[in-house]
Amino acid sequence: MIIAELTITPLGEGTSVSKFVKEAFKAIRATGLKIELTPMSTVVEASSIDDIFRAVKLGEEAMLKLGAKRIIIDIKIDHRLDKDATMESKKRAVMEE
Amino acid sequence: MIIAELTITPLGEGTSVSKFVKEAFKAIRATGLKIELTPMSTVVEASSIDDIFRAVKLGEEAMLKLGAKRIIIDIKIDHRLDKDATMESKKRAVMEE
Amino acid sequence: MIIAELTITPLGEGTSVSKFVKEAFKAIRATGLKIELTPMSTVVEASSIDDIFRAVKLGEEAMLKLGAKRIIIDIKIDHRLDKDATMESKKRAVMEE
Amino acid sequence: MIIAELTITPLGEGTSVSKFVKEAFKAIRATGLKIELTPMSTVVEASSIDDIFRAVKLGEEAMLKLGAKRIIIDIKIDHRLDKDATMESKKRAVMEE
Repeated sequence: MIIAELTITPLGEGTSVSKFVKEAFKAIRATGLKIELTPMSTVVEASSIDDIFRAVKLGEEAMLKLGAKRIIIDIKIDHRLDKDATMESKKRAVMEE
Repeated sequence: MIIAELTITPLGEGTSVSKFVKEAFKAIRATGLKIELTPMSTVVEASSIDDIFRAVKLGEEAMLKLGAKRIIIDIKIDHRLDKDATMESKKRAVMEE
Repeated sequence: MIIAELTITPLGEGTSVSKFVKEAFKAIRATGLKIELTPMSTVVEASSIDDIFRAVKLGEEAMLKLGAKRIIIDIKIDHRLDKDATMESKKRAVMEE
Repeated sequence: MIIAELTITPLGEGTSVSKFVKEAFKAIRATGLKIELTPMSTVVEASSIDDIFRAVKLGEEAMLKLGAKRIIIDIKIDHRLDKDATMESKKRAVMEE
């Protein structure tokens, strides 16, 4: 699987942006992809980079609909081909003694 | 509080780096700061940026001790002064209906 | 315009990855988009997020062709709708006295 | 040398933040470290991670002085021990045919 960490931030909408982040999170969740909300981003697990990019665009569109005029998007993708890494296996590999 | 998302990656140690990430995670956890492991990073909550940077250096040192010869560090810091944001309050603000 | 900062890094190919980065850079340059190489990334200017994502995929494919088995992609996108920002206008705004 | 890519963004100061970025850039430049402005960040070359972190704090302080109430800091550090990489050598390695 391909795992990505997404942060979508509206600039110019005050210091509190949770109204925007909430709508973007809902749009990403609605894709049906496996996701995990963290205090700094949303982690997404997908079978293709296109699915990741589609989720990002849906998240951004949700913010644009709320009137955002400038959006900063941060995406970090971990694409592993030699092993089927998942969100769970990556965390387990760090936590296992 | 100041919240930071840290990813420390050794380059040149093969495709599987969990041995290194595990030691860095342990070093960061030993700081006693509140932390959360995600599939892509470790989120840390601290009262100063110096505490964040100290945790990063401890994590990197743990990898250097294992012999890493090149390390990529990604840090994203959310420093909010108008409200005492925490890891929990940031997630709650997104999850609340 | 939409401006993006791209860093594509192969994991597991030794500490020196310039052979991979060079091929990815050539593939991104071949898109014809306006680009700027920095010591840490390639900055790209495009009229749509799809163009940015297409350039990223071409860069990654170039590394996959060289045999990379794990690839970390970092993308930071600045999408401004209230003003036509360009790579030059963003730098000028910072450098102007 | 250690090379880092820094982006310091004030949240809540409108869509145009160049007034803040300019002051942060000046503060980082005043450290005397070798720097390069890109359309998305400032790249810094230093002999220690402490120098990088000091530059980041000076940049943030410049924005706080202007009244910023929430600041997002992105730092990507490339720390190579097996070779003395510089900003120039990294770019040359990609551009050389």
